[in-house]
Amino acid sequence: MTNTIHIDAGSGYDVLIGRDLLAQVGERTRRALPKTARIAVFTDTTVQPLYGDAVERSLREAGFETCCFVFPAGERSKNLATVGRFLDFMSEHRLTRRDAVLVLGGGVAGDMGGFAASIYLRGIPFVQVPTTLLAAVDSSVGGKTGVDTAYGKNLTGTFWQPSLVVCDTGTFDSLGVDQVLDGTAEIIKTAAIRDADLFERLEAGALKADPEAVIARCVEIKGEVVASDEKESGLRRILNFGHTLGHAIELKKDYGISHGRAVAIGMLLVTAATRKNGWTESGIYERLLSLISSSGFAVETDVPLEDLCEAARSDKKSEGDSIHIIYLQTIGSCADRTVRFDALYDFLKSE
Amino acid sequence: MTNTIHIDAGSGYDVLIGRDLLAQVGERTRRALPKTARIAVFTDTTVQPLYGDAVERSLREAGFETCCFVFPAGERSKNLATVGRFLDFMSEHRLTRRDAVLVLGGGVAGDMGGFAASIYLRGIPFVQVPTTLLAAVDSSVGGKTGVDTAYGKNLTGTFWQPSLVVCDTGTFDSLGVDQVLDGTAEIIKTAAIRDADLFERLEAGALKADPEAVIARCVEIKGEVVASDEKESGLRRILNFGHTLGHAIELKKDYGISHGRAVAIGMLLVTAATRKNGWTESGIYERLLSLISSSGFAVETDVPLEDLCEAARSDKKSEGDSIHIIYLQTIGSCADRTVRFDALYDFLKSE
Repeated sequence: MTNTIHIDAGSGYDVLIGRDLLAQVGERTRRALPKTARIAVFTDTTVQPLYGDAVERSLREAGFETCCFVFPAGERSKNLATVGRFLDFMSEHRLTRRDAVLVLGGGVAGDMGGFAASIYLRGIPFVQVPTTLLAAVDSSVGGKTGVDTAYGKNLTGTFWQPSLVVCDTGTFDSLGVDQVLDGTAEIIKTAAIRDADLFERLEAGALKADPEAVIARCVEIKGEVVASDEKESGLRRILNFGHTLGHAIELKKDYGISHGRAVAIGMLLVTAATRKNGWTESGIYERLLSLISSSGFAVETDVPLEDLCEAARSDKKSEGDSIHIIYLQTIGSCADRTVRFDALYDFLKSE
Repeated sequence: MTNTIHIDAGSGYDVLIGRDLLAQVGERTRRALPKTARIAVFTDTTVQPLYGDAVERSLREAGFETCCFVFPAGERSKNLATVGRFLDFMSEHRLTRRDAVLVLGGGVAGDMGGFAASIYLRGIPFVQVPTTLLAAVDSSVGGKTGVDTAYGKNLTGTFWQPSLVVCDTGTFDSLGVDQVLDGTAEIIKTAAIRDADLFERLEAGALKADPEAVIARCVEIKGEVVASDEKESGLRRILNFGHTLGHAIELKKDYGISHGRAVAIGMLLVTAATRKNGWTESGIYERLLSLISSSGFAVETDVPLEDLCEAARSDKKSEGDSIHIIYLQTIGSCADRTVRFDALYDFLKSE
């Protein structure tokens, strides 16, 4: 069974979630992009050997000409230089404004391939085929694209919506435990900020029992938030719960920690602080800690709090002298306050 | 006297045209961006010594913190590497989403600085201060940003509207004859496609007699076209009259010919072809040739037609197997047809 979630952002697009969808990628893409002639597949050295041929075959059977650009897997490739090489590759293959990009891979591929699509000839369409749980519930929906710089994660990018997202949950079978945990952190975040019922289902083990329903609900929630605030000026900020400190941890660990693990700790750090300040109901921190811990995450970081505060300052969500903090009021409900950088350390430090 | 033209694209912005406006840049920018704290001035090694200090002083007097990034003047700087260095510069100076870029210079600075602003933290505001006639009538209005690649001009970029354009016509006094001609080509193009009255005024010498009125009218026309078609899917294409072949000439001359000179020849090549095919009224080619020639342009190129056809194929306006040709029906009125690449040589060759 295929779940279809419609996202009402950009010109509107569908997210398909189900098993064994890879073989349908060509046909589904043809429906979404009826006039497209050529598709440049953008993938990495881990994913291409697993699924690259199946996807290109499906695209060719649907009448597309294809070419495939493969970059070295990993966050260290996520920079302007890799994007520049892919832009040149598309020019070499004479892609025009009627052609498109298909991103096959996790969040790094999705963010970077979407960014390249958004700036090639001032923007061509792209299709997302996420192959990690994290990309499925997080980066493949919402239209945020970007690359890292020496100064931090995703500091360069655009808002550019895909034309279609095809999520074959069968591809998650090849993920390691750590990668599954990365997606799990985003799922917990989504439930925590927006859906108490989903949070309870997660506490009862729904992610193992019925993963597709959980993913579909997370995509639906993200779609609602994004549709109401495409450019991240208001509501969309709530999706950053745990992310500002998560990014700071990643930066200080020189990206030696995965995104989801960093976000899990970021959520706990913020919630511990807002519990202390009385912004978060009592008992909530404990439920969050329990779900995160029982899901298999480490719940602490060895990065000193001083360093996190300094790294948070370079986060793109910062505005002038203060930083936006997204925090839980209770499970399923969150809010947004600003904290001055010079007060951030005291705000975060334990009692 | 300052002419103010309002452009109804993006969130809407004013273009100010007059003499001695540089000293008002700070105050005008403050009105357009009331909450902005820091401004990164983006300029080149030719323009900075002439006007950089005056602009930074004006900005500081209006309460902005400023920093200034200077790149080596010339089209050869217009690439992703220069943009990358400016993005890092903005991170070093801790610019946030509440801050802004001010571009001081000609088309190269404007296209590249606007592009950097559009991708820094997924987009921050920018102000254009064009210091060439060409930039004033062409690139500073309309929101097209971009850089060149090894494969052609402006193949990478975004659509990103400025928040304000301040055009001090006094800065044109420092331009060489060639640079004035570059702008003149765009002015002739604008009149030819859209305003028979302006074309007649140009034939009568209006550009020398009353340059500010001519510039203001060109900006107004461009604004109308852009407002009706921000993303270049339809009407806006008419602004490309002469540009597809102009870009091909620039590419084949390895950018050894200026943009305006290339466009002037591009307009003549297309109009000669469409006169031959009967798409353009008789007598129009002769008027265009006469105005272009009497304005001081060369009217021919030594690039072989075969090479132009091949270079045109990599133009971003090409779609699949064919290319859009914008042509004059008569003075003040143009239209748009597609020509297949395999028929382009015969289409363009002289009788």
